[in-house]
Amino acid sequence: MKIGFIGLGIMGTRMAANLQKHGHSLVVFNRTREKAEPLVAEGATWADSPAALALQAEVIFTMLAHPDAVEEAALGEDGFLRYPQPGQMWIDCSTVNPSFSRKMAVEAKARGVGFLGTPVTGSKGQAELAKLTFWVGGETSDAERYRPLLECMGNRIIYCGGPGMGASLKMVMNQLLGTAMAAFAEGLVLGESLGLSRELLFEAILGGPGAAPFLASKRERIESGNYEPADFPLRWLQKDLHLAAVSAYEAGAAMPLTNAAKELYRLAIRDGRGSEDFSAIYDYLARNQDVKPSNNGHHDQSDRSNDPTGGRLCAR
Amino acid sequence: MKIGFIGLGIMGTRMAANLQKHGHSLVVFNRTREKAEPLVAEGATWADSPAALALQAEVIFTMLAHPDAVEEAALGEDGFLRYPQPGQMWIDCSTVNPSFSRKMAVEAKARGVGFLGTPVTGSKGQAELAKLTFWVGGETSDAERYRPLLECMGNRIIYCGGPGMGASLKMVMNQLLGTAMAAFAEGLVLGESLGLSRELLFEAILGGPGAAPFLASKRERIESGNYEPADFPLRWLQKDLHLAAVSAYEAGAAMPLTNAAKELYRLAIRDGRGSEDFSAIYDYLARNQDVKPSNNGHHDQSDRSNDPTGGRLCAR
Amino acid sequence: MKIGFIGLGIMGTRMAANLQKHGHSLVVFNRTREKAEPLVAEGATWADSPAALALQAEVIFTMLAHPDAVEEAALGEDGFLRYPQPGQMWIDCSTVNPSFSRKMAVEAKARGVGFLGTPVTGSKGQAELAKLTFWVGGETSDAERYRPLLECMGNRIIYCGGPGMGASLKMVMNQLLGTAMAAFAEGLVLGESLGLSRELLFEAILGGPGAAPFLASKRERIESGNYEPADFPLRWLQKDLHLAAVSAYEAGAAMPLTNAAKELYRLAIRDGRGSEDFSAIYDYLARNQDVKPSNNGHHDQSDRSNDPTGGRLCAR
Amino acid sequence: MKIGFIGLGIMGTRMAANLQKHGHSLVVFNRTREKAEPLVAEGATWADSPAALALQAEVIFTMLAHPDAVEEAALGEDGFLRYPQPGQMWIDCSTVNPSFSRKMAVEAKARGVGFLGTPVTGSKGQAELAKLTFWVGGETSDAERYRPLLECMGNRIIYCGGPGMGASLKMVMNQLLGTAMAAFAEGLVLGESLGLSRELLFEAILGGPGAAPFLASKRERIESGNYEPADFPLRWLQKDLHLAAVSAYEAGAAMPLTNAAKELYRLAIRDGRGSEDFSAIYDYLARNQDVKPSNNGHHDQSDRSNDPTGGRLCAR
Repeated sequence: MKIGFIGLGIMGTRMAANLQKHGHSLVVFNRTREKAEPLVAEGATWADSPAALALQAEVIFTMLAHPDAVEEAALGEDGFLRYPQPGQMWIDCSTVNPSFSRKMAVEAKARGVGFLGTPVTGSKGQAELAKLTFWVGGETSDAERYRPLLECMGNRIIYCGGPGMGASLKMVMNQLLGTAMAAFAEGLVLGESLGLSRELLFEAILGGPGAAPFLASKRERIESGNYEPADFPLRWLQKDLHLAAVSAYEAGAAMPLTNAAKELYRLAIRDGRGSEDFSAIYDYLARNQDVKPSNNGHHDQSDRSNDPTGGRLCAR
Repeated sequence: MKIGFIGLGIMGTRMAANLQKHGHSLVVFNRTREKAEPLVAEGATWADSPAALALQAEVIFTMLAHPDAVEEAALGEDGFLRYPQPGQMWIDCSTVNPSFSRKMAVEAKARGVGFLGTPVTGSKGQAELAKLTFWVGGETSDAERYRPLLECMGNRIIYCGGPGMGASLKMVMNQLLGTAMAAFAEGLVLGESLGLSRELLFEAILGGPGAAPFLASKRERIESGNYEPADFPLRWLQKDLHLAAVSAYEAGAAMPLTNAAKELYRLAIRDGRGSEDFSAIYDYLARNQDVKPSNNGHHDQSDRSNDPTGGRLCAR
Repeated sequence: MKIGFIGLGIMGTRMAANLQKHGHSLVVFNRTREKAEPLVAEGATWADSPAALALQAEVIFTMLAHPDAVEEAALGEDGFLRYPQPGQMWIDCSTVNPSFSRKMAVEAKARGVGFLGTPVTGSKGQAELAKLTFWVGGETSDAERYRPLLECMGNRIIYCGGPGMGASLKMVMNQLLGTAMAAFAEGLVLGESLGLSRELLFEAILGGPGAAPFLASKRERIESGNYEPADFPLRWLQKDLHLAAVSAYEAGAAMPLTNAAKELYRLAIRDGRGSEDFSAIYDYLARNQDVKPSNNGHHDQSDRSNDPTGGRLCAR
Repeated sequence: MKIGFIGLGIMGTRMAANLQKHGHSLVVFNRTREKAEPLVAEGATWADSPAALALQAEVIFTMLAHPDAVEEAALGEDGFLRYPQPGQMWIDCSTVNPSFSRKMAVEAKARGVGFLGTPVTGSKGQAELAKLTFWVGGETSDAERYRPLLECMGNRIIYCGGPGMGASLKMVMNQLLGTAMAAFAEGLVLGESLGLSRELLFEAILGGPGAAPFLASKRERIESGNYEPADFPLRWLQKDLHLAAVSAYEAGAAMPLTNAAKELYRLAIRDGRGSEDFSAIYDYLARNQDVKPSNNGHHDQSDRSNDPTGGRLCAR
C-alpha cells in the first residue's frame, strides 16, 4: 500500500519515518523540499504538489500547522481532493477545531474519499519512539481498518467517535492543561507572597493530590526562569482555550474558569509572553509587581476627595 | 451646642468650617495641630487629645482615613469613648466597612453614647460648598435629630437604615463605579482594536444609554493619558471591590463580575498603576500589547512538539 | 428611485412604511406574504423572491434576523446578488458580526453592487416615529449619498467607518449594556443581602453617577418580577457578548469582565431564563439561594475528614 | 509527659487515641463528655474545662472546628491560656487562617507558652492509621522537639516556616483542589455537550498529564450522581477559596481563576449544593440546562425591538 504524507515538520518527519520503517512505501510533499530529503534517501517518492501526490497514494496523511494549511492542501488549486482516487483515504493528524474536522469529512465524502481526523499528543521524542497518542474521530470501520498504520507511529490509539470527536477530546485535554497551569501559578505566587519558599511549595504540591502530573515537568523552567524555546507556546494554549470557549458557546456549556484563564493568558500575550512556554504564566503573575511605595490603604482621608462624579451627584 | 471635630484633612477642615459658619462652637483635634489653625483663628478650641475633646463636646464628628484610625481615636489610650458624657453623640463620617461601623455602634452604646455612621460622597469642592452627600446609618430618631448638623455640610442626606447601612450603600455605589469603569475600558480597547476611532467611540457611547454618567468625566484623562494626581486612586477602588467581595461572601451573594474587576485592577496595581486615577485601567488594558512579531496561530505544525507531559502520557 | 425591502418584521414593516411615506416607491419581499399587505395596499409591489426584487430595485434594504438569513437572501438560489443591476446598492440593516458584514461587502462589490452595513438601535416605537439610530459602515461617498434614505427612518445617523464598522460599534454598545446590567444586578443583590431596601437602592443608585441610564427602564421589571415578553432577550444579549469576546480574541484585546458576564448569562440561560428580558439576570442572582440550613462555616471539625485524596497523599 | 487534648471529634478522637497508644498519658476536654469516654476507659483523665486541663498538661493539643472555637478554648472565660504553666506548649491542629494562627502565637508567647500551628490533611481512615500529614508552622526548635508527638499521629511532617505558615500551605493546597475540580467539571460538561461519552472522557483524562490525581477519586460520585455524605463539603471548599482570595488581597497577589472558581461554587451553594461533596460542582454545571425551546440565535429580526433604552437614545 502506497502512503502519501503531507507536512514534514519536526513531528511529521518522525511520523513518516516510522511508517517507512514498517515497510510502507511513501510519497511525500512539503512546502520546502529540503525536509523531505532524508525520507527520499530511504526510498520515498517526492511529489511536486498535493495533487500530484493524490494520484499515487491510497492513504494520505496530513500533519499541518493549522486549519488554513489543511484546507489549502486539500481544496486549494493543487489540492489533493481535486483528484480523488477510488477507495482513497485521508487521515488528518493536524490539530484543528471539531467543526473544521467535520467540514473536511463532508468534503472528503462528497468526493468519495474516506476521512479520519486524528489529532496527536506527544513530544518530539515520543514521535521518534512511536509513542504518540492518537485521538481518532471518524467511522468505526475506518478507525479499525487503519489502526495498524497509526500503531506504526503511536502506542495509544483512542477511538473517540465520529468526525471531529478526536479534535473535541484533544480540546478538552488542552483546556485542562491551560487551567491547571494558571491555577498552579496563582497558588505558587500566593504561597510565595505569604512567605513560603518556592522549594517547599514544589515539594509539598507536586506529586500531591491536587497537582496535575505535567506540572512537575514545568518546575525546571520556573526555577530557572527560562521559558524559551517553548514546548508549547503560551499563544497556542490561549488559542486552544479560545477554541474551547467557542465550542462551549455553541454547545450551550458554561465555562467561567476556562474563560478567566483565557483572558489571563491574553493579558500575558499583550505583555510580550506569547512565544514563551505557557508555564511563563507563572512568571507573568510573579514579576509584575507594584514598585511604587504603597501605603496599602493607610491613607490620609484628608486627601481623599474621592468623587469620581465631577460634582454631578449633588447637582441632582 | 458645642461640637467636637476629629480629623482635619482636606475634607474635614472644609466640613468643620461649614459647621462653624452656621454658628456652631467647635472643639477640634488632629494628629498635626497645624491644620487646625484656621479654625482656631475663627474661634475653635484646640484639644490635646480625643479624650480631652470628649470632655467638652456634646456631639463628636470623626472624619478619618481608615478604620484603624477611627478605632484609635475612639478606643485608644486617649480615646474619646473612654470619657463618655451623658447624652453624648458620635457621628462617624469616615469610610469604613459595614461590620466595623456596627462594632463602633455597639462600643458607643455600651458607654451610653449615641452613634451614627455616615460616610460621605463628594469632592473637595463639594465639601467647600456644603454639597456633600451623607449616607446615614443608625437609629431613625438620631438621624432626624442630627440632620440639621449634616445639612450644614451637605445637601443630600440619605437615611439608609441601622448602623452600618450607610457604609453598605456607599460600598454598592463604589462597586458600580469600579465595574462600569473597567467594562467601559474593555469596550474602548475592543473598539479601537477593531479600527474605530476613540473620538467616535466617546461620541457614540458617552451620553448614550449604556454609559454611566461619571464616565464622561474620565474622557479628558483618557485622551490626555494623564492619570495623576488621582481623583480616586485605583488602589482605593480595588480595596472597595475587595470589601464588596468580602461582604458578599458573608452575605452569601454571588458577584462574578465584581470579582473579575477586582482581579483586573489588582493586575494593574502590580503593574505600577495603583496611585493613578482608577480610569488608568483603560491605559493598562490599552498599552500592554504584545510587541514581538506574532504569527497569530499561523505557525508551523512541524515545530509543534506540544507535549507538556515530558513523555508521561504514553508511559501509561 | 425604486427601493427594494426584504424582511418585513416588526421593525422592517415600520421602516419600509416610513420610506413609503416619504414618497419612495417600494418593491417588497418577505418569507410570509401576509406581513407585506399593508405596504402593498399603499402601493408597494410584491416580489416573489429576492431575485425577482433585484430586477426592479435600485437600492435594496435587508432587515433580517441573523447572518444566515442575510446570506440566503443575497447569495441563495434565488438571492438578489445573483441578478446584480448596474449601479445597484445594498443596505443591510440586520444585526450581524463585523466580519460577516465585511464578507458581504466583498461579495457585493465582486458583482458591481455597492454596500453599506448599517445595524440599527431603537424600539418598535422609535421605528414607527422614524427615530432610529443607524450605525453606518461602508464607503464615505455611499454613506453620504444614501443618508437621505436613512433619515426617512432614523434621526441619528452615525458614520462609523468602512465595511463592518457599524457592526463593530453596535457590538461595543451591547457589550456595555450587558456588563452594566449584570454588575448592577450584583450590586442590587449585595445591597439587599446586607439589609438595604430595594427601593432605597433604586433611589440612591439610579440617576446617580455610577448607573447607566438604561437601567432606570428596568426598574419596573425588577420590581414586578415580570421579565416577559422581553425587550431584549437574555439569550441575544449573551450572543452579543460572545461575539464581542470572539472579536476581542481576533483583535488581541483582553476582556475579563465581559467574559465573566458572558458566562454568568450562560448559566442563567441553562437555568431557563434565555427568552426572558436580559434584566432577568437580577432575578437569577437573587432567587437562587441556598435553602438548606447553613452552619456557615461553624461546623464541627470532628466531622471533618476532609481528604479528597482517598489516602493518596500519605502513600507517598 | 502529660498531654492535654481539646476537641474530640471524628479526627480528634483518633489522633488522641494514637497518642495514647504510644504510651502518652492524656487529659482530655470536649464540649460533650460522651465522646471522651473511650479514651477515659483507656486511662485518660477528664477535665471539666480547658482551664482545668491547663493545670495538668505540659503539651496541649487543640483540634477544633473553626477559629472562634479555638479562641474560646484558649482565651475564653475558662480558656487554657488563662492558666499558663511554665514551659507549657500549645499545638493547634485546627484549620484556621494564617493571620489567626499568628495571632494565637502572639497570645501564647505573651503568656510564656510555646506555640505550633499544624493544620492536618487526611481522612478519618488516615487519622486512625496514623497516616496524617501535618503542615507545621512555628519555631524550628519547637518543631523539632515536638516532632515525635506528631509522628504518633502522622507519617508526613512538613515544616513550613514560622507561625501561620502551615495554615498558608494548606490554603494553597485547597486552592488547587478547588480550581482543579471546577476546571475538570467544565471540561467534562463541554466534552459531553460535544457528544463524547463520559466514560471515554474519564478514561482519556484521568491518569493523563492534565488531571490532578484526586480527581480519580471523584469518578464514582459523578457516575452515580451521589454527592452525600460529603468527603469535603462544597461550602467548606468555597470558604477556603474565599480565604485564599482574602490572603491574596493582603499579600498583593492576583488570582483571577481562583476568584472565578470561588464565585462559581457560590452560585452552586445558592442553588442548594453547599452540603454536598464539592465534586457536585460537576452536577451543578451539567444539570442546569435550558429546557425551553431555544431558537439559538435563529430568531426573527422582525420581533426584535431591542431597545433597552426606553427611547432615550434618540432623545439626544
